[in-house]
Amino acid sequence: MGIQIGVIGAGSCSNYIEHIAKKVGREIANNGAILICGGLGGVMEAASMGAKNAGGTTIGILPGSQRNESNSYIDIEILSNMGHARNTIIAQSCDALIAIDGEYGTLSEIALSLKMGKKVICLESKWNVEGTIKANGPEEAVKLAIKNIENEEN
Amino acid sequence: MGIQIGVIGAGSCSNYIEHIAKKVGREIANNGAILICGGLGGVMEAASMGAKNAGGTTIGILPGSQRNESNSYIDIEILSNMGHARNTIIAQSCDALIAIDGEYGTLSEIALSLKMGKKVICLESKWNVEGTIKANGPEEAVKLAIKNIENEEN
Amino acid sequence: MGIQIGVIGAGSCSNYIEHIAKKVGREIANNGAILICGGLGGVMEAASMGAKNAGGTTIGILPGSQRNESNSYIDIEILSNMGHARNTIIAQSCDALIAIDGEYGTLSEIALSLKMGKKVICLESKWNVEGTIKANGPEEAVKLAIKNIENEEN
Amino acid sequence: MGIQIGVIGAGSCSNYIEHIAKKVGREIANNGAILICGGLGGVMEAASMGAKNAGGTTIGILPGSQRNESNSYIDIEILSNMGHARNTIIAQSCDALIAIDGEYGTLSEIALSLKMGKKVICLESKWNVEGTIKANGPEEAVKLAIKNIENEEN
Repeated sequence: MGIQIGVIGAGSCSNYIEHIAKKVGREIANNGAILICGGLGGVMEAASMGAKNAGGTTIGILPGSQRNESNSYIDIEILSNMGHARNTIIAQSCDALIAIDGEYGTLSEIALSLKMGKKVICLESKWNVEGTIKANGPEEAVKLAIKNIENEEN
Repeated sequence: MGIQIGVIGAGSCSNYIEHIAKKVGREIANNGAILICGGLGGVMEAASMGAKNAGGTTIGILPGSQRNESNSYIDIEILSNMGHARNTIIAQSCDALIAIDGEYGTLSEIALSLKMGKKVICLESKWNVEGTIKANGPEEAVKLAIKNIENEEN
Repeated sequence: MGIQIGVIGAGSCSNYIEHIAKKVGREIANNGAILICGGLGGVMEAASMGAKNAGGTTIGILPGSQRNESNSYIDIEILSNMGHARNTIIAQSCDALIAIDGEYGTLSEIALSLKMGKKVICLESKWNVEGTIKANGPEEAVKLAIKNIENEEN
Repeated sequence: MGIQIGVIGAGSCSNYIEHIAKKVGREIANNGAILICGGLGGVMEAASMGAKNAGGTTIGILPGSQRNESNSYIDIEILSNMGHARNTIIAQSCDALIAIDGEYGTLSEIALSLKMGKKVICLESKWNVEGTIKANGPEEAVKLAIKNIENEEN
């Protein structure tokens, strides 16, 4: 089974953050990892686009119950119909998570992932949570995610 | 996005049912659909094996929280950590479901899927629930699932 | 801590079933047990009314996310925001469940409760599921629920 | 229906924090509000004890699936069997939340509650999250919670 990396971030974001998220998605795909995200817009959409364009696989774990409500770059839709509780499924299912920018939802997801003992790489984050790993760019973020996953396996 | 077909059934089963489930998985893959299941043994494992051997994609939505607890034919693990509530996620995420044999868990999943308005194809089922569609074999089951999904889209 | 008894049934029902559900609620309260239900109308509302009028405590585990969407006889609202998955929380939280009448949702809940090893008493049920206990009236239903809970404790 | 106030905090804590949590529970009960918490030890247990000793009602929304695993001061056990996802149910079900001390789990719950638009009162918190309301003591915390709930209703 492949490595599963989560990308978390807000449902709408600036062009700059979109650009960053796209690159994160691309790097995830280039490293042969599967991208898991919340399936909606903003950071989630940009990262999914980056991964798809690089030939990767993208999973959207959605808050709602309707098919085809995810962004256009999602291969597989998991419909939780559980609102915010879907975030716990994202955190639980990933070997490591990359948080990009983000508001309260992202902060909640970061803290939850740390609570579960997952590694969290932060990129362009305004939240400065003890225990997260800071990355300076998309390539470094994915490299740190994969390195931390491999360390745990050894 | 591809069609998502669920296969539901017990975590342990007879060789005969395993044989049937394998064929259902194979037909799902041959039709280009994605297989979603509970990711564990029995019917779930046999269907996943059938799909993987035919080059398909398999998603396991697991009750637990640990990676690598799914059967060996699962491509992507969704870790719900929600026990039986993961069944609602399976039903919600599928365009149609095929129930094979099965006990109380399968009956619960059949009724839940019908409640959500999903088509449920029953194969070798001891439960005879009004509203389900009976199939006489694996090929017919998958054919009925796909036909019903297409009817809904038109 | 008190015994927790679940009442499951459809969100709308006939006057006759309402009458039965009210009596079930009343008996639950008269036996000092807490009533847990889905918090909405029909069987849930009638049972809650019966319990409240007899001085009991009523818990509604709701599918939605808004306060004050439960029926008027609910003391405590648990807002799951999880749609059908809230049914697993109801089944899990009860020491025994009484199913009254009901459609697919109730059938799903009956099967799920049996899968969890809970005792399920059926009253006026069109579903005839192996493993459930049939009661002939409201008083007998609550008596059977309590007797089965006590048997498990001993 | 009564006001529902959540108390969130770690499952183990210092005597000092226990003392604070007990007083918060007592004030919640004295104000006729219902206490909702995660049902386990530490802050949750101390707050529940405070509320029970003052004649209040306490609800524990537990991560597990077994009855009688909550602390001794819980009146009603809601068994989610959903691990961390139970935190979303707590946040969703409360009109306001009081966070006492706490680690990653509490931070996640604070951010989630803010995301849901709930008021969050922080007491002895090491997390300094924009949008929370800081209280200087247990009485003030409960007073602020109730005042904010009343403001929203008007």
